[in-house]
Amino acid sequence: MNLKQYLPFLDWLPAYRREHAVSDLVAAVIVTVMLIPQSLAYALLAGLPAQVGLYASILPLVLYALFGTSRTLSVGPVAVIALMTAAVLAPVAAAGSPEYIAGAVLLGVMSGLMLLVMGILRLGFLANFLSHPVISGFITASGLVIAASQLKHILGVEASGHNLIEIGSSLATNIGHTHLLTMLVGVGALVFLVVSRKWLKPLLAHLGLGARMADLLTKTAPILAVVVTTLLAWGFGLQAQGVGVVGQVPRGLPEFTLPPMEWSLWKQLAVGALLISIVGFVESVSVGQTLAAKRRQRIDPDQELIGLGAANLGAGFSGGMPVTGGFSRSVVNFDAGAETPAAGLFTAIGIALATLLLTPAIAYLPTATLAATIIVAVGTLIDLPALARTWRYSRSDFGAMLVTILLTLLYSVEAGLVAGVALSIGLFLYRTSRPHSAVIGRVPGTEHFRNVLRHHVELCPKVAFLRVDESLYFANARFLEETVMDLITRQPELQDLVLVCPAVNQVDASALESLEAINERLHDAGVRLHLSDVKGPVMDRLKDTALLKKLGGKVYLSAFEAWQALTRPATEAV
Amino acid sequence: MNLKQYLPFLDWLPAYRREHAVSDLVAAVIVTVMLIPQSLAYALLAGLPAQVGLYASILPLVLYALFGTSRTLSVGPVAVIALMTAAVLAPVAAAGSPEYIAGAVLLGVMSGLMLLVMGILRLGFLANFLSHPVISGFITASGLVIAASQLKHILGVEASGHNLIEIGSSLATNIGHTHLLTMLVGVGALVFLVVSRKWLKPLLAHLGLGARMADLLTKTAPILAVVVTTLLAWGFGLQAQGVGVVGQVPRGLPEFTLPPMEWSLWKQLAVGALLISIVGFVESVSVGQTLAAKRRQRIDPDQELIGLGAANLGAGFSGGMPVTGGFSRSVVNFDAGAETPAAGLFTAIGIALATLLLTPAIAYLPTATLAATIIVAVGTLIDLPALARTWRYSRSDFGAMLVTILLTLLYSVEAGLVAGVALSIGLFLYRTSRPHSAVIGRVPGTEHFRNVLRHHVELCPKVAFLRVDESLYFANARFLEETVMDLITRQPELQDLVLVCPAVNQVDASALESLEAINERLHDAGVRLHLSDVKGPVMDRLKDTALLKKLGGKVYLSAFEAWQALTRPATEAV
Repeated sequence: MNLKQYLPFLDWLPAYRREHAVSDLVAAVIVTVMLIPQSLAYALLAGLPAQVGLYASILPLVLYALFGTSRTLSVGPVAVIALMTAAVLAPVAAAGSPEYIAGAVLLGVMSGLMLLVMGILRLGFLANFLSHPVISGFITASGLVIAASQLKHILGVEASGHNLIEIGSSLATNIGHTHLLTMLVGVGALVFLVVSRKWLKPLLAHLGLGARMADLLTKTAPILAVVVTTLLAWGFGLQAQGVGVVGQVPRGLPEFTLPPMEWSLWKQLAVGALLISIVGFVESVSVGQTLAAKRRQRIDPDQELIGLGAANLGAGFSGGMPVTGGFSRSVVNFDAGAETPAAGLFTAIGIALATLLLTPAIAYLPTATLAATIIVAVGTLIDLPALARTWRYSRSDFGAMLVTILLTLLYSVEAGLVAGVALSIGLFLYRTSRPHSAVIGRVPGTEHFRNVLRHHVELCPKVAFLRVDESLYFANARFLEETVMDLITRQPELQDLVLVCPAVNQVDASALESLEAINERLHDAGVRLHLSDVKGPVMDRLKDTALLKKLGGKVYLSAFEAWQALTRPATEAV
Repeated sequence: MNLKQYLPFLDWLPAYRREHAVSDLVAAVIVTVMLIPQSLAYALLAGLPAQVGLYASILPLVLYALFGTSRTLSVGPVAVIALMTAAVLAPVAAAGSPEYIAGAVLLGVMSGLMLLVMGILRLGFLANFLSHPVISGFITASGLVIAASQLKHILGVEASGHNLIEIGSSLATNIGHTHLLTMLVGVGALVFLVVSRKWLKPLLAHLGLGARMADLLTKTAPILAVVVTTLLAWGFGLQAQGVGVVGQVPRGLPEFTLPPMEWSLWKQLAVGALLISIVGFVESVSVGQTLAAKRRQRIDPDQELIGLGAANLGAGFSGGMPVTGGFSRSVVNFDAGAETPAAGLFTAIGIALATLLLTPAIAYLPTATLAATIIVAVGTLIDLPALARTWRYSRSDFGAMLVTILLTLLYSVEAGLVAGVALSIGLFLYRTSRPHSAVIGRVPGTEHFRNVLRHHVELCPKVAFLRVDESLYFANARFLEETVMDLITRQPELQDLVLVCPAVNQVDASALESLEAINERLHDAGVRLHLSDVKGPVMDRLKDTALLKKLGGKVYLSAFEAWQALTRPATEAV
């Protein structure tokens, strides 16, 4: 049982059948065809040599297949993680230099270790603190930055930078040097990809292919663009005419790589590696959950941390770059009929074959083509309507989203993400520190009590009923103190205060001390504190505490019981 | 109205009468007598020249009287803040050096600015995140460190360090050099203070003084110890015999001081200044609230930030050290009958007179006496039973407390505090990320629904009812997704899932997207999602969202209504 939890392949491998193998193989072929240009393109985006993307698509896939719990997740380089890799490594070394490549290896290893540790400590819940608006804003903004960063390849000019301001100004400076032939290739590829995305599917369907097959074939359009432009570049010697190409790529499988062992570098990359880990995890888990649900399967987020951790360690030690589960590839894998993680193993074999056989051809591949595939791919990441939707629904969520987007676009991806998370946790803590509470009164003639501000209710000037609508813990304990003191200051004739606690699921040590302080202060002010509607588990913990021993008043089962006991003398007097 | 909020003296000054002045003057005299040795001692504790303590007891008191909302809080140097000041400044310069003194000034100014900004932005709630167990553990541990740090003055040896390990090892090295005459003075003062604390009050009461007066006179024992040992030191020329004394103190009022304007120093002290601000604020507000409650008065925590901010700015610009409201002095001020903040103004005048008249005498004051007053004073801070109490009540609170204590004792006050806060926020976030939810079933023959695990209830295999007992927000949205997916995986025949939401006060944008994802995933899995018991305000916000438009099922008023609608066909079939 426990072994199966940590080695999920024990679950599917023993029951693996020939039918599974056929489905998995078909899916693997399609995903491989899709992954070859993607892995090259994302390596380019990360500022790394093209083969690094291929290396990150072999061992990581094998390890995820063994340790991951999603049956259909396609692990490998993805756009946002590639962008983050570039941003984290930028201060360390010049893109493409040996130190830079070593940095990418280290990022993979560190991110792998962090994910593993988080998985073993079952810290998957940490990802919850990346709220939807923040992650959505972050991905939209990253998509825009990625698209902007690829324009230089389309135009064939020099440009650099990690935010829109830097990229924009360096493009503006160099736009005069636009290389027309490069632009022809780039824009051509771009138009082909956009057109095929829009019209290839209906066309194929029209030609008699099934809708699913037509959809899958459409997803392989990038490889077509790659093949055609590579052939053109080779046939017409475009490189000699100034068109940028991928260039010489080492042939063969990746070798075992050790990360650099400089402590200062580890420290410098720590925050970046953590952000890459968390973003990768959140992305991967949400894709995985969506796909698993369609087949009523489940993924285990804590084991996913271990799976992704193993994949990233694998990426690091085999000279790759940080990886995670990608959205579009996973959907294709799923739609193509992948049944088990074996599809991932077969894909790894496919990429391994590519590194053995295709590298001579890849040398001729124009970078403009890769840039075009990136731009088209990130188009799907950009979700501007989400801004309007969030604005309409919640201003505080919108605030966190907007800060994330603006900082990501204009400053850096790390700053955007950190600020967004900090702001949303801050807003959350702020809200929980002000729990809803209401002074309540009796609905005349009944046993019910309602908010005095909203209903016409009976009150007694000497007895106040305060209902607390949330668990009490340190974040709101002091607020309760203030609410109570405010109440007794405003109502000088008060003699009894009943705290009505039907929604209090928990009272932590801070709240207990606050209640004790409230009890004492009320005592000093000549007011007795009572409790009512205390839940069973809360009462169990309170019963041995000083609070109950020193309580000025009593604990009543219900507000009505308190009302009867405390207002009776007054009623009798009338 | 608004002006009175920011200038609270407009509230009491116009109504100030002669009777007030008499009460305030009496209280001020007693507090001044108490504050003179304390301010000298805490300057010593902070590693600063004695006069810095006096300077910090003049202008800050005036400014707090103008801007603070507590009528009886006594602001000035306090033990824990003095210890923190020493810890923050230790890496900056050697104790007592001009750079060190300038650092103390800067800490006062920075802490003042931070408190002011927090007050203006109404960020007083931030202090809520210092949970009671953390602050209590921190103060206990600080008290122990402070007491240990004063032993060197009692023994007349050299020692240094900012945690028990450093202090202990340096004391152990030098204990052979103990100066007997110094120890005689120190131990004498210590015994006198302890004895007077225990027996002076009954003795005075026995001599016919009222209990309150006896209590107040007992509090002035430290000044007696100071006067007697100063006279001894002067009369017998103890300084020449090797007994440490305060030494030459500049005579006269403090002068206007500018903080050093080095940006690197500001950056270096920022975290320390923030911690000093928050600890000072928390201490001060809890004292202020306790005292205000006794007279049914209120303090306004956000305006307290402004009052304390002004006081610290005043401390900085007049060559003082960070200040806050002290517990023991405020209680004495209150008990001595202080009616308005004018008592603080009168105390400031008293201290100003002391700096003009008493400084020649202070030069002979043995530091061993001051150390003895510190040790006795911090004895009241140490609360070891709180550890046992917290352990019994809550293990997670105990964990945060223990970490705070151990780190403060063995590493540093800053690390202890930061780790305690981070751990308690982390534990809190962890708890909120796993909200209570329960699968519920119908209590046979009624309209009530209860947890299936605790009650004998009616169930329908095709319809599940999941009750969520907390508001839904990003921290727990994903947990809900997992709970739901878990449920449908375990119950393959399920056709309808009803989310019962009587305790959901809020659904933020993340939770909304999670609900949409749940709805879609359930749809893919052939299950309809329904909602019931949605509160009015939540429903108002949900009604224009995609969730309700695409909801697979319906929104029912109650679980029972849903039960009737969804299980009817089955019942009819039977």
